[in-house]
Amino acid sequence: MDFKDVMYRRRAVNFFDPEQPVSDALLRELVETAANTPSSFNLQPWNLIVLREPESKGRLEKLAWNQSKVSEAPVVLIVLADRSGWKEGHSVVERNFQEMVRTGAMTVEQREWFLGACGSLYGASEERQQAFACKNTGFFAMSLMLSAKNLGLDTHPMDGFDVEGVRKAFQIPNNFWIPLLLAVGYFRKDKELQPPKWRKSYTDIVVSF
Amino acid sequence: MDFKDVMYRRRAVNFFDPEQPVSDALLRELVETAANTPSSFNLQPWNLIVLREPESKGRLEKLAWNQSKVSEAPVVLIVLADRSGWKEGHSVVERNFQEMVRTGAMTVEQREWFLGACGSLYGASEERQQAFACKNTGFFAMSLMLSAKNLGLDTHPMDGFDVEGVRKAFQIPNNFWIPLLLAVGYFRKDKELQPPKWRKSYTDIVVSF
Repeated sequence: MDFKDVMYRRRAVNFFDPEQPVSDALLRELVETAANTPSSFNLQPWNLIVLREPESKGRLEKLAWNQSKVSEAPVVLIVLADRSGWKEGHSVVERNFQEMVRTGAMTVEQREWFLGACGSLYGASEERQQAFACKNTGFFAMSLMLSAKNLGLDTHPMDGFDVEGVRKAFQIPNNFWIPLLLAVGYFRKDKELQPPKWRKSYTDIVVSF
Repeated sequence: MDFKDVMYRRRAVNFFDPEQPVSDALLRELVETAANTPSSFNLQPWNLIVLREPESKGRLEKLAWNQSKVSEAPVVLIVLADRSGWKEGHSVVERNFQEMVRTGAMTVEQREWFLGACGSLYGASEERQQAFACKNTGFFAMSLMLSAKNLGLDTHPMDGFDVEGVRKAFQIPNNFWIPLLLAVGYFRKDKELQPPKWRKSYTDIVVSF
């Protein structure tokens, strides 16, 4: 699909067709397209929990303001932002360093520099850890929403849920923040799509001080 | 451009052609395409400072590990994430509520509910404020990078800078976090583009606990 069509046709839909499933192959294609997202030092501090079963979606729905789209969407993703994804010993940090050495982007001698830069930029405070995890996972989630539209799928990013309740119910470790839930499926054709919401203009967005 | 081409051809380029400018019209088209990004309650908590002048880019370069792409790129955006963009009285929050009432998405009587929901989801702790601002601005920044590629532009998202130094030098108020700088321009054709970096696979991304 043309990029601009994807940008303008992507909508947060409120009603999903519970009868139209999303295959494993399509979900994999969605995630692997979005995996091409850039990130801080290529650390990719994002993960997904995939929910498909009525039981697990039902548990999540109760923790998400009883929004029925959680049950109706064939797939719901719990999107996780890894606040520890900059630490020495983390599997992605170590793999990343090895890959940089392998491709010649860094030398083995630069290990201390690399770990020091990650620690000071992303780990030096809770504020920085949260920013690192949420910004990069924000990049990834946007790619997921656009890649879904390109594959003919609809999505709805959700904030209305109890973060600590979801953490407990799905045994999510404390290193993860949960920036959003993402419902994925097909818009239910007997429902009406609302007109697009207002957006800030160029002059609203650009500021100077 | 086809969506998948945009996803795979977008690259963080290290060398910009300093002789190839980006017009005001093109920059506006870029920002207004990306403005279509979804956000928490449509609060759009993002802003941009646009730098074009050698003097201001030079000041930023010194605070950004002397990365020469800051000066070489015709446009550098300081991307701002508004941690106060959920508060009663904030111009976007107020406009948003008015627009929801105007379109029938909410009634005037739901004002307390709306402000309460924004406050509890996005304002209840510094952790939540940072997550709200950085996640949504992450969505927007990803849209900027992809929209740029679609318009024939190249970008480079940068983390290697002194947040407090940039805040001071550009008088950025404390309600903003600075999740990234984004260099925008055209790849310098006499330079070689490195091969794409490794990415996590589906099975690396999907987890369960």
